Formats: sequence, structure tokens, C-alpha cells
Amino acid sequence: MRPQDIIRQKRDGGELSHEEVASFVRGVVAGEWADYQSSALLMAVYLNGMTTGEMEALTQAMLDSGEVLDFSDIHLPKADKHSTGGVGDKTSLVIAPLAAACGVAVPMISGRGLGHTGGTLDKLEAIPGYRVHLELGEFRTILGRVGFAMMGQTAEIAPADKKLYALRDATETVESIPLIVASIMSKKLAAGLDALVLDVKTGSGAFMRDEGRARALARALVRTGHSCGVQTEALLTDMSQPLGYAVGNANEVRECVEVMRGDAGEEARPVRELSVELAARMVALAGVEASLEKARERVERALESGDALERFRRNVEEQGGDARVCDDPSRLSDLTLAEVRVESEHAGFVVAVDAAEVGRAVASIGGGRARVEDRIDPAVGFLARARIGQALSAGEPFGLLYCRSESDVARAVARIRAAYTVEDEPPRYVPELIKEVIAQ
Amino acid sequence: MRPQDIIRQKRDGGELSHEEVASFVRGVVAGEWADYQSSALLMAVYLNGMTTGEMEALTQAMLDSGEVLDFSDIHLPKADKHSTGGVGDKTSLVIAPLAAACGVAVPMISGRGLGHTGGTLDKLEAIPGYRVHLELGEFRTILGRVGFAMMGQTAEIAPADKKLYALRDATETVESIPLIVASIMSKKLAAGLDALVLDVKTGSGAFMRDEGRARALARALVRTGHSCGVQTEALLTDMSQPLGYAVGNANEVRECVEVMRGDAGEEARPVRELSVELAARMVALAGVEASLEKARERVERALESGDALERFRRNVEEQGGDARVCDDPSRLSDLTLAEVRVESEHAGFVVAVDAAEVGRAVASIGGGRARVEDRIDPAVGFLARARIGQALSAGEPFGLLYCRSESDVARAVARIRAAYTVEDEPPRYVPELIKEVIAQ
Repeated sequence: MRPQDIIRQKRDGGELSHEEVASFVRGVVAGEWADYQSSALLMAVYLNGMTTGEMEALTQAMLDSGEVLDFSDIHLPKADKHSTGGVGDKTSLVIAPLAAACGVAVPMISGRGLGHTGGTLDKLEAIPGYRVHLELGEFRTILGRVGFAMMGQTAEIAPADKKLYALRDATETVESIPLIVASIMSKKLAAGLDALVLDVKTGSGAFMRDEGRARALARALVRTGHSCGVQTEALLTDMSQPLGYAVGNANEVRECVEVMRGDAGEEARPVRELSVELAARMVALAGVEASLEKARERVERALESGDALERFRRNVEEQGGDARVCDDPSRLSDLTLAEVRVESEHAGFVVAVDAAEVGRAVASIGGGRARVEDRIDPAVGFLARARIGQALSAGEPFGLLYCRSESDVARAVARIRAAYTVEDEPPRYVPELIKEVIAQ
Repeated sequence: MRPQDIIRQKRDGGELSHEEVASFVRGVVAGEWADYQSSALLMAVYLNGMTTGEMEALTQAMLDSGEVLDFSDIHLPKADKHSTGGVGDKTSLVIAPLAAACGVAVPMISGRGLGHTGGTLDKLEAIPGYRVHLELGEFRTILGRVGFAMMGQTAEIAPADKKLYALRDATETVESIPLIVASIMSKKLAAGLDALVLDVKTGSGAFMRDEGRARALARALVRTGHSCGVQTEALLTDMSQPLGYAVGNANEVRECVEVMRGDAGEEARPVRELSVELAARMVALAGVEASLEKARERVERALESGDALERFRRNVEEQGGDARVCDDPSRLSDLTLAEVRVESEHAGFVVAVDAAEVGRAVASIGGGRARVEDRIDPAVGFLARARIGQALSAGEPFGLLYCRSESDVARAVARIRAAYTVEDEPPRYVPELIKEVIAQ
């Protein structure tokens, strides 16, 4: 098959066969497709879309480009969760132990943060000693012992995705639903899952700010998951403000530990609520409980009994981290940091938050990355107090910024202040955390 | 300007500024744009189109990527003709001397044939000794002395086009009207023209078979020419059968010489008619005559008086060719060739011709190129006798095929025979040679 023939077909709005899609992916990995041919096809896909059949073929071909992990020796149903990314989006650290405590094995392969978003690996590394680089054998052992294990992507998993993502990044073809679907699903399915729950974010801190686009992505992900033989559901969730209260790696881990300890404040309620719902759906989809209701009850029990925290502690121990953070989450806070109040200038109601701008402000003081090669300072961060709908008096803080030095954060403070919109009237609409369930 | 920002804008259907287009073309030539970024933009242009302003900017930027010839020392208006290519399309050889005989300087930079089409350079090289590789100084001298000169494109003219064309060829983005317009116009305008007449072909032997697409191309070319400050007109002309009677390089030159000698048969009438009309429009657009009527009269006189033939003879002499072909065109025929009648099996009327297939059949016996590096046999060719609308009895020939050996042309004969559709009823519609004039 000539690359030109495949490009022409997609250019003209046609549907590619499984074999044509597979030929493209094999050609990319083997170097038989020139990069300029691949990027022409990527742009044609961006502009002309893909059918469910094509997305399934692309996912499968990218999955087949690398290693598929085999955990059949672990006799538990395997499930995972994937979030499309947001600000303060930390639920993986609660969900994995919760689901594990309910009898689901969670082989979680995660990523790092870039731009305004954080990444699970960066958060875990805020725990002193925690190792995210595991050999596959060790990953398997920990998964078997604890019920969940966490690591970064290896070069063996979906190498086609790595190559295509670099091209997409340079050619403005990242934000294509079929390409996002195949990228996410090929990596997740490489862990050999029975069930997958997707948390598709929408709003000011999400990659897909537009709710319609996010819904379309959620539907495409669910359809493709089912096509590939995996029980799949998606929640469309709100990212119009940071999730929970902490933004910044160590503080986010602290918030998660507090949720699992049961001593988190009201500001962490969204983290608890979303973690329980996502974990319950994993438990139900994996077939451990017969109904979602029963799964929710079981997940609640696992959280309240301390079983989830216990699983988390064992995982931290196995992966080399300092498990004392489970007993005293304040160990995660660096007391040498400066604390800066970010105050509202006017009295009024918070009606909107530019969550991405909050994320970028935290990244700008070292809490995130502008480029892949940037180093992260895990301790810095922003602890939000104000949420959409809340009334503030003049001078009351939107939250507290923790930074290395008070002197060089004026710009970050100004950015966060500008990210909050305060008006005289309360907002007509306070966003719901879970907007929609997409099951099929 | 980052390539990504420019790609994104075109991807989203926006209009690029002159500066953005220029930045792209400069980046391509300087190697600052990666090929995969260029091809992503080319695909976005293919699918989302370009405005007249963008086409003008792209033409201008590609023109500016190389040398613009300066013939201001030749005190005559400069004009040229460009054809989008067809089968038996040989008018350049008549038009250039005709326009020169009327007081227009014609600095004609031409191309070679590929696939089913011929190229002016290949036709000229069928004249023994004729040199198409000229130094610019020599080209200028001949242009000044004879009124027209013919040569191939140099590396100095629009190098951006060369690079982009290679990418377009590999990524199925050749057939994009804005990209075709910029490619044609940047090369033609590099000759420093005052006026340009375009012959946009449509029908079975044209690149744009579809008349609507060809009309859109013609309009875009004319608009862009005017935007770039050049008097421009286009004729939309018929290519639903070979133009005139000869297909094959030496035979096509012979047909042109016969037209200029005034001893061509009726089968060459379309070549004469189209050459006169295109030349007259060049003469009128260049301002040598005040009206198209007067220009037509002048061109007719130049043809009938033998002035055009005289100009042609002088050009052949200057460019090293054997000028005896002007006195005895039969010198162009190779008498050692085999002559094969391609006959109609049935009696009836010719209702359609697949002209591209006739062109490919001639190419297959050595008269053209399948690949750029193929060598051409100038002598072989097909002399068509039948035209659309003509009645044939069974066994009467569609034309004569001239080839090296009768034994290995069975497939070419079969292809030509199959290219002619003969039916019991005459066609309801015989195509007009000139379908439309696009002046602004």
C-alpha cells in the first residue's frame, strides 16, 4: 500500500480500512512513511475525522506497535481510570487504592504534567523516596501484593504513539478527537484491562474547554473501548475551577491522604465525591459487584474503614516512599516556604475561575513544566479557598500561594487574582461536578 | 512567527496575512520549517482553501524566493502564455513566434512532459540540434534578436516551488487550486511579464477533467495575476480529445510548422484557431493593439504573411536547431518507423475520446515519460484522424500509430482503440474548442 493512496482517501473524506490504518501505523514505526507524509495524513484526519471503525483500527494498530502487558497470573479483574487532565486533578491517588481495596487489580500507567496540568507521576514523586520507574517484573509483583501499582510509560508500550504525538505536537494536530482517542486507548489497553473508566474534563482548566467537544470525545472513547472489547464508561466532569483545594504536587498528595484518612475539610469534598464515583464504576464495570449501587456502597466502606489508606500505605512502602506521610500528611508540607495571600480586591461573588491560568501560575513558580525537560519543585503550590458561587468580602483571600521567595511571585499572584472573576451578583449557574455519564 | 501558529490558523479555516504566508515560504527555503510542518500546512490549504489575498501572497512569496528576470533593456511589452497541459497541446510553438512577429517579446520558460501530457521542451528537442538549456545571457540575446526565446526552468527561479512541489507530490496535495495557482504564477511572473494569457484545459485529457473545477482554477489564476499587477486573461478550452492531429513530439512540431507554413490540413485547424486566439489576446493585453479585433487581424496577417514562420526559423537557428525543418517539415518524420492503423471495429460515430489514455499509450511506446527520469523517443507518436462527431465505417482508422517495432505495440493499439467510444447515434453535443473567456 502506497502512503499516497491512503492519504488521498482520507483527504477526500473516505473511510480507511483496518488494513490501511494498520499499514500506516506499521509504516510510521518502520520509517517507511516519511514524517511529511504522516503529518499530511494527520492533518487530513484532523479536518475530515474518523469513523468508530477507523478509531478502533488506529487504537489497535498503535497498541500492536508495542508490548501488551499480560497480568493473567493475577486472578482479579483488571481495571483502570484515565483522566483527560485538569488543574488539581488528583483522583488517581485515591481511586487506585480504593478500587484495589474492593478486589480490582489496577495496573496504572501514568504520565507527567505539562503546561497548566499536573501529572500523577509528579504527584507521587512528591512523596520522599517514591519510585515511579519500575521494572515490569517489580510492577507485576507490587500489583499482585497490593492490588495496584503505579509507573510511567515504557518505551515498549505503543511506540507508534510516541512518534505520532511528537509529529502532532509540531503540526497542530493534537486536538483531534480520533487521534486523542487512539493515543489514550492504545496506551491504556496495553495494560491488558477488563474495564476502563474515563474522566473527561470540560471547562476553563480542561484541554477541551468546550462541553460539546468534550462530550464528543467521551462518546468516541467509550465507543472505541467497547469496539476493542473493554468495558468502558466515561464521566463528563467539571473543570471550570481547580478540583478540590490543592494545586501543586505535594499539597495534592496531602489532600488525597486527608481524604483517605477521613480528616479532609469541606474544600476537598469534590475530590472525595469524584474519586468514589469513578472507583465505584470501575468496581461495577469490572464485575466485582453486580450493580453500581452495591459498588458505591462497597467503595464507601473501603474508604471509611481505612482499607483504602492501608492499600495506599502498602503501595508507598513497596515503591520506596516514606509511608509516614499516611500518618501525618503535614509531613508533605515544606514549612520553609513563604505563604502569600491572594486576595480579592472587591467584595462580591466568585462567578468564574480561569483554572488553566491558576495552573500556569503555579507552574511559573516551579510547580509545573512549561517544557518537557523542566524540573519541578514539588512543595510549591496554591491552596484555593474560594469556589464558584462563594461570597467574599474585599481583602478576603481566593487562596494561599506557597512559594520559595515572596519577592519573585508578584506576577504569579497577579495572574491568580486575574483568574478569579468577582461580581456583585451571584452566578446564575454553579457547575455540577458530574455533568453526564456516557455508558455506550 | 512559529510554524505551529500559522498551521493552526489555516487548520481552523482562517485567512493568513501576507506576512504569515511570506514567513512560511521563507521558512521552507531556509529549512526553518520542517517538511512535516510544511506538509501539514499544505494539507490544511488543500482542505480549507485560500482567499485571493492569500494566493497573491503565496505567489509573491514564491516568486521572491528566487530570481526575477529583468528584461527592461528590451523595449517591448513582455507577454507569455501558459497551458495547464493536455494531449497534443502544442500551441506554444506557434504562439511564441506569432506574438513576437506582432511586436511582443515572449520570454518563454517551459517544462517537460510527464504522464499523459507532453512538454514544450521535449517538443523543441525533437528538432535536431535544438538547445533548451541556455545561459540567461544567451536567452536574453535571443529574446532581443528574435522576439522570443525558449528555455527550461532554472534553479534560480522560484526555488520554493521546487521544494513544495516535491512535498505536494508525496502527500497528495498537488490538486489544490491555490497551490496550483501559486506554482504556475510564481514561475511565470519570474520572467517579468506585462501580460499573461492562460489556457486552462478541461476534459478527458486535462489535469482538471471537471469543467467546474477548471473554471474555478481559471478564475483564481486571473484574479491572482491581476493582484500581482499583471494583465491576465484565461481561456477555458476543450481537452476532451487530442488537440489537432499529432500526439508525439516530432509530429507535433511538424504540425506546428505546417500551420505556420499555411499548408496544414483540416485536422490541424484547432491548433491554428487556438493559437491565433491566444496570441491575439497576448497582443491585445500587452497593449500592442487597442482592441482584440485589431489584435486578431494583426495576428492573422503575421501568420499568413509567413512572418511567424520566419521568426520561428530564426529562433531555431539561434538555439542551434536544424532550420531546414521549416522548409521541409517531413524531415521531422522518421521513415524507418513502423506504421500501424488503429481501426474502429464497428461502424458508427465517435462520441467520446479518453484523451489521457491516448497520451499514455503514446508514452508507453517511448513518446512520453512515466517517471521524470525516463528518456523520450521523439519520433514515435499517434496521428489522429477521427474527431468527436465523425462517422466511421467498420475498419476505418481512428488514426495511425508510429512506433519502433510493430511487434510490441499490441497493448498500445488496444489502449487507443479502447479510448475511442463509437456508437450508432451521433453525439448530442460536439465540444466547442473555446468554452469561455475569463477576463477578470
